[in-house]
Parts: sequence; structure tokens; C-alpha cells
Amino acid sequence: MAKQRVLTGITTSGTPHLGNYVGAIRPSIEASCDDSLDSFFFLADYHALIKCQDPAMVRQSTKEIAATWLALGLDTDKALFYRQSDIPEIPELTWVLNCNAAKGLMNRAHAYKAAVQANEEAGEDPDFAVTMGLFSYPVLMAADILMFNAQRIPVGRDQIQHVEMARDIAARFNHNFADVFTLPEAVVDDSVAVLQGLDGRKMSKSYQNTIPLFLPEKQLRKHINKIKTNLLEPGEPKDPDSSTVFQVWAAFADAAETARMRKEFENGIAWGEAKKQLFELVNAELAPARERYNMLMDDPGHIESELRKGAERARAHSVPLMQKVRYAVGIAPIT
Amino acid sequence: MAKQRVLTGITTSGTPHLGNYVGAIRPSIEASCDDSLDSFFFLADYHALIKCQDPAMVRQSTKEIAATWLALGLDTDKALFYRQSDIPEIPELTWVLNCNAAKGLMNRAHAYKAAVQANEEAGEDPDFAVTMGLFSYPVLMAADILMFNAQRIPVGRDQIQHVEMARDIAARFNHNFADVFTLPEAVVDDSVAVLQGLDGRKMSKSYQNTIPLFLPEKQLRKHINKIKTNLLEPGEPKDPDSSTVFQVWAAFADAAETARMRKEFENGIAWGEAKKQLFELVNAELAPARERYNMLMDDPGHIESELRKGAERARAHSVPLMQKVRYAVGIAPIT
Repeated sequence: MAKQRVLTGITTSGTPHLGNYVGAIRPSIEASCDDSLDSFFFLADYHALIKCQDPAMVRQSTKEIAATWLALGLDTDKALFYRQSDIPEIPELTWVLNCNAAKGLMNRAHAYKAAVQANEEAGEDPDFAVTMGLFSYPVLMAADILMFNAQRIPVGRDQIQHVEMARDIAARFNHNFADVFTLPEAVVDDSVAVLQGLDGRKMSKSYQNTIPLFLPEKQLRKHINKIKTNLLEPGEPKDPDSSTVFQVWAAFADAAETARMRKEFENGIAWGEAKKQLFELVNAELAPARERYNMLMDDPGHIESELRKGAERARAHSVPLMQKVRYAVGIAPIT
Repeated sequence: MAKQRVLTGITTSGTPHLGNYVGAIRPSIEASCDDSLDSFFFLADYHALIKCQDPAMVRQSTKEIAATWLALGLDTDKALFYRQSDIPEIPELTWVLNCNAAKGLMNRAHAYKAAVQANEEAGEDPDFAVTMGLFSYPVLMAADILMFNAQRIPVGRDQIQHVEMARDIAARFNHNFADVFTLPEAVVDDSVAVLQGLDGRKMSKSYQNTIPLFLPEKQLRKHINKIKTNLLEPGEPKDPDSSTVFQVWAAFADAAETARMRKEFENGIAWGEAKKQLFELVNAELAPARERYNMLMDDPGHIESELRKGAERARAHSVPLMQKVRYAVGIAPIT
């Protein structure tokens, strides 16, 4: 059976944190070892420009994310690992897809509708501060997906709609011109852990409650100590299921260790002791990768060469696909 | 003084006709001989895709338009003459500009508003059949202009707004990031002739009332004979100012010949005779170029090589400009 092609984009507008690791990076790298899958991962820097107007942050984030995936053992000979902005066919395809995408489809995109609602609630013009980047990014995302004939797009529930839009645009193009595009499918894995942050809400850059993934050991300990707990004293039984400390523990421990910690909570483990054990568990998993990460951050030429290798491999797909698209719509050398 | 850079796009979705020749091609080629100007002309095939879903027509139109400009003597060593789709930096810049263009700006674009109004009058959803291509093409047009730091954009009155949008987007980018873009200005020449078509309305592909520019001689005569006139007999005085025959005459004749024909109208020239003279006048101006046109249409390799030369010259501008843009927004090799 042919391999299933899986495509994942990573927006380069922040520093990877434990939530990204547990919810996305670790399972993705694991999946990329599956021989029945053909994995594409890309640094979505064109997407980063939609929300981030800080060039230093885009550059730094691109470097950190690339170093993170490499440090965590992504096999770049097996998986394709590339930077979106190294593939000039992507913005070109975006334009062609624009001509096949109904504006009405974009009107219904969740992210846009949320921006409009927030504006209306604030008494502003519905499109206040909405850029064409925000409004039309589902088309860019369709180009990301359709460019590589990806079949499976692992997404959170909030992103299913975008994959459906890519399907819709692809079907419209195939109908209008020629059968060029594979129709992609969203794959939602509800078993993926969503990690809580320091304050107990979902760990997210926008809440400023993250634990960056490759903090130096001391800093990691400090951050873990800052996880919000309640005032229960040592010896008082604690509820594991409402505790961020326990939740992070479960994301790193195996079943036996998770069961043991649950018991410890019931037996009234002190918060300080629980956090100490948590730090040791997390640090043990991350320490070897952290060392590789630090070496990579000191060797930017190596990161760059990995991305260029990925770009070359990706363009072996994107150049011929774009040629097909161009020919289908009437862009061709004069004959 | 530095040369003023002038940029003009020609949408490749039709066959050049006398109206295009008189209103755009002839004055543009004349202007390109002016040593104080630095002229850029491009075949806007990405724009053609917005309205034209017929690949054969896009291809044929691209060929015909390129052959037309070359046949009419455009000096491609002096002016830059290129095909939009040969410049991958243009769609890339379009995306970056999307992230700096307010959606509210596009909501106010005339072409979009006209589509919405027509839909509303027809009782349809306001965005019925509106594609993202139609909605966002002012951003593509901004990329066309800003990519080459063009200063003067010759446009009809209906296009002034788009040049102002390009200014607005450029100013926003310059303010947000770095002073990369020249602010363009619309140049409206109201003296440019707008030719009437066979039925007396403006000559336009959409009215199907055109006289294609390089029709074979016999066909040209036939078309001119089809120009709508009134029922006045030979000998009866005729009004030159309401006559398409006279209007086309004036677009091709010099002042003395125009005055003579005005007299002839007053003296009651027969329509047949007026059309005969008109055919001879138009044919005399077009015949040498028509011969070159036919030779070029039989030598597609030559047209293609001219466009490739133009693309190479254009990319000598677009590649370094795009590098500046990328660096400004944070897309750069990892260091």
C-alpha cells in the first residue's frame, strides 16, 4: 500500500514550550518513525507574519523551532523538514488558489469571525485591525497542503474547518481545470495531551504561562516551582485530577509512575516534594535533547544546511506540481 | 535628474483591438522612447486568471499581446518587457503585503463594490461568485508596482483608487518595518482617446464590439464596414462629432487630415466612401506592423526569448528588492 502523506506546519512566532512538546512535537516525531507514513514538517514563517511584526522574534523563533525538532531526533532523511519561505511555489500557488476560492468561504472562517465579533463587542468597525493576511490565511494554508498532495493533516478541533476549506478549494480547481490536487483530510487525535500552564489555564504563549522547553536546568526548576497549587499542607490528601503538577507528571511518566504519583497525592505528598520529583522526571527526559539543542543553537550553519536540504527535497515535489497547475490554468511558455 | 520609472500592466485575457492600440499601446510605446522615463511593461497573466478560466485563451492572449507590442516596435533593450508569472517574487511580495494591507481597504475597492451591488440587485448573497482573486487583486497590483519601485502608474480614472491603495500599503510597510518602498503616483492622461466600437459604445471585449488590431486586410475592411452609421444619404451633411467613423478617423489622422474629413462630413460624404477612406488610413498605419506581427506569431520561440530576456532584467530588480523585504520582516538564513 502507498504511504499516507502527513503534513504539519509550525508557526514561527514563539519559543517552543512544554505544551508544544507534549501536544505536538513529541507525537509528531514519533509518528514520523512510522514506515507507513510519509511525513512533511514545515516552519510556517509566512504564517508567522500575520500576527508577528517583530522581525527579530520571527528570526529567533525560526531558529529555536528548527533546533528543537532536530535536537529531539527528527530524522531529516526520512521526514521532509523545510522552511515555508524557501518554497517560492507556495505563494504562487496561493495566488492561483485565490482565483478558485470563494470569498464567502473566508467570511465564515472561525479566526476571522472571532476577530469581527471582538470588534463588534468593542464598538469598533467589524474589520478593525483585520489584515488581508488574517482574512486570507486559509488560502495560504490550502496552498501549503495541496502543494504536496498531503492526505492527512493532523489538527486540533479548531483547525478542522481550514482543512475542509482546502478540500473545497481543491475540488473547485479540479472541477474547473484538471484533476491536479489530492483532497486532504483532517485527522483529529483527541488523545493528545493539552498541557496546562503555570496558572492552570491551557499552556499558551498568549497567556504568558508557559514553561519553555529547553530552559537551563536551574530555570526549569524555578519554572516548575512556580506552577500554581493550592494551600493544602503536607499530609493532607490532594486531588491529582485538578492539579497541574500531576497533569504534567502524567504527560512525562509511564503508567506505573503515574499510578504511583496518584497514590502519593492521595497520601498527601507535599507540593514541594511533588514539584521536586516532577522537575527530576521532566529534566531526565529533556536533558540529552537540551544538550543537543544548545550545540545546535551554537551551530546555526548546521541548522541552515538541514533546512536547505529539506527545501531541496520539498522543491522536488513543488516545482513539478506547480508546473502542472500553471499549465492547467494557461500559464506556459509561448508555442 | 534620475529617470522616472513608469509601470504598466496588460491583462492577458483578450485579443488586442483598435481601442487598446489607440488608448494604450501606441501612447505607451511612444512614451517608452522618452529618455527621461524608465518604462516597465508586463503581461499580467496572474491578473488574467481572476476573470478568465479558459487556459487556451490565457495562452493565446499572452502570445498575441506580446507579439503586438514587439511588432509595434517596442524596444526591449530600453523598456523592460516581461511576463508577470516569470517573476516568482511577485506572488511572494503579495503575501507579505497581505499582512500589511487592511481588509477594510479592500472592502472599499470599486470592482468589489460593483460586484456586491450587482449581487444585491439580483437578490443574491452579496459575495455570490466573488472569488478571493477578485477581492484581493489590489494587493497583487500593489506588489506589481512596489516590486519595481515604480513612481508613475499611467491609469484610467477607474484605476486611481488601486494606485492609492498601493501607496497606502507601502506606507504602512515602511512605517512598520523599514523604508523599503517608493510611494507610487497615479498618472491620468485625459487626452488619451477612448475609442468607440462597432455599435457606438466604448470599444471593449465585454461588449463584443471590437475591431481586432491585426485582422487580415480583408477582415479589417469588413469590420470597418460594419461600424454603425445612420440613414443619411450621400450629399446630406453629417455630424462628425457623433460619428464613430469620424472618431476612429481622428485617432489615426493628423490635424490636417482630420480637418479635411470634418469638411467632407459637412459636405455630405457618403458613408461608404468615408469608410473606404477610413480603411485605407488605418490599414496604411497598421500594415507594416501587421506583417511583423504575422512573422512573430509564426516564430513563438522569438517571442518567448524576448520575454525571458525581460524576465532576467526584471529579476535583477525583484530579487534584491525581495531580499530587502524578507530581511525587514524577519525571513532570513539562520545565523
